[in-house]
Amino acid sequence: MKAERGILIVLSGPSGAGKSTVIAGLMRLRQDVRFSVSATTREPRPGEEEGKDYYFLTRQAFLRLVENNALLEHAEYVGNFYGTPAEPVERDLAAGYNVLLDIETQGAVQVMERRPDAVSVFLCPPSLAELERRLRGRGTDAEEKIRGRLETARRELARVKEYTYTVVNDDADIAAWELDAIITAERCRSERRMEFTEKGDLIL
Amino acid sequence: MKAERGILIVLSGPSGAGKSTVIAGLMRLRQDVRFSVSATTREPRPGEEEGKDYYFLTRQAFLRLVENNALLEHAEYVGNFYGTPAEPVERDLAAGYNVLLDIETQGAVQVMERRPDAVSVFLCPPSLAELERRLRGRGTDAEEKIRGRLETARRELARVKEYTYTVVNDDADIAAWELDAIITAERCRSERRMEFTEKGDLIL
Repeated sequence: MKAERGILIVLSGPSGAGKSTVIAGLMRLRQDVRFSVSATTREPRPGEEEGKDYYFLTRQAFLRLVENNALLEHAEYVGNFYGTPAEPVERDLAAGYNVLLDIETQGAVQVMERRPDAVSVFLCPPSLAELERRLRGRGTDAEEKIRGRLETARRELARVKEYTYTVVNDDADIAAWELDAIITAERCRSERRMEFTEKGDLIL
Repeated sequence: MKAERGILIVLSGPSGAGKSTVIAGLMRLRQDVRFSVSATTREPRPGEEEGKDYYFLTRQAFLRLVENNALLEHAEYVGNFYGTPAEPVERDLAAGYNVLLDIETQGAVQVMERRPDAVSVFLCPPSLAELERRLRGRGTDAEEKIRGRLETARRELARVKEYTYTVVNDDADIAAWELDAIITAERCRSERRMEFTEKGDLIL
């Protein structure tokens, strides 16, 4: 039996929403999720592996991908380019994996426009007060940095409506379980089952 | 905190798809699901309870509900009327319960038109051959009745595309778990969370 095509999931959420904890919880709940690896023109940091942490590209190679329309989204930050190569994502989806893109709101909107089949999820903190508490609780960031993050969070939270789903991370286990349910439910959407059906694998 | 509004779920599926087993499995998985009770003009059968199995109405009382637009759907079968009263459904939804309507395709389409917020799920057998095997396996029905059921099933299966979700009942536990995931995921849809948000319960 041919593998049923996977789901492309775009996950965004402000710093302090708890994305990495929720993602780790999701990976414990299901084995069919893969992360997308981003391409970047920045220098590798010690310990970072090519093809695992990032695809490290020259500026020229990166711009060739942009020209060839080979990135699902891309953006520039402090002088470096970052983007999501389409081809590895497509390969994993075709093999039946659900592919998770962990990207900020601007990149997410680019992916949604290009891939209307993508499922978008916004991970929210339960409140701005709680977000502030979490950011301060880390005890590592300067006041100015915390204020900047809260400002960015406010701006990102205003875009929740552009995402299909909103998961509130009050309890990380519950949030992971909701994300898991979203993937399961999306795989049951009739238009996806129909795709499957027309291949003759399911029914008729 | 005010209860988050529940989800209205329309479930259809041909005889032999295993609806009652899957529904029983769903009820074990979550306590926040309630069944809608239908109204009918047919006579109560021994053991049937008013308000539990059906609301038993006179023809006149039923037609008054139709006139008052107080039914989510209705239809006539072999001389009797059947329908879903809107008011008890609305009351349970407002209290936070997810309300399950177990109805055939024509009634389901009426509900979807009237309530675009309803979530529609079609329960499929894994194949027509398996459906036939199950119907014959009961050992209770005459050949003619089985043929009639298969014909109806073929006609209903052609309408799968009108449903948002398709759950294939190969294994009843997995089907119940998928139905559970659909409810969880639908409760995470941003437009529902926003409804919640604007009441001020969640964030901002």
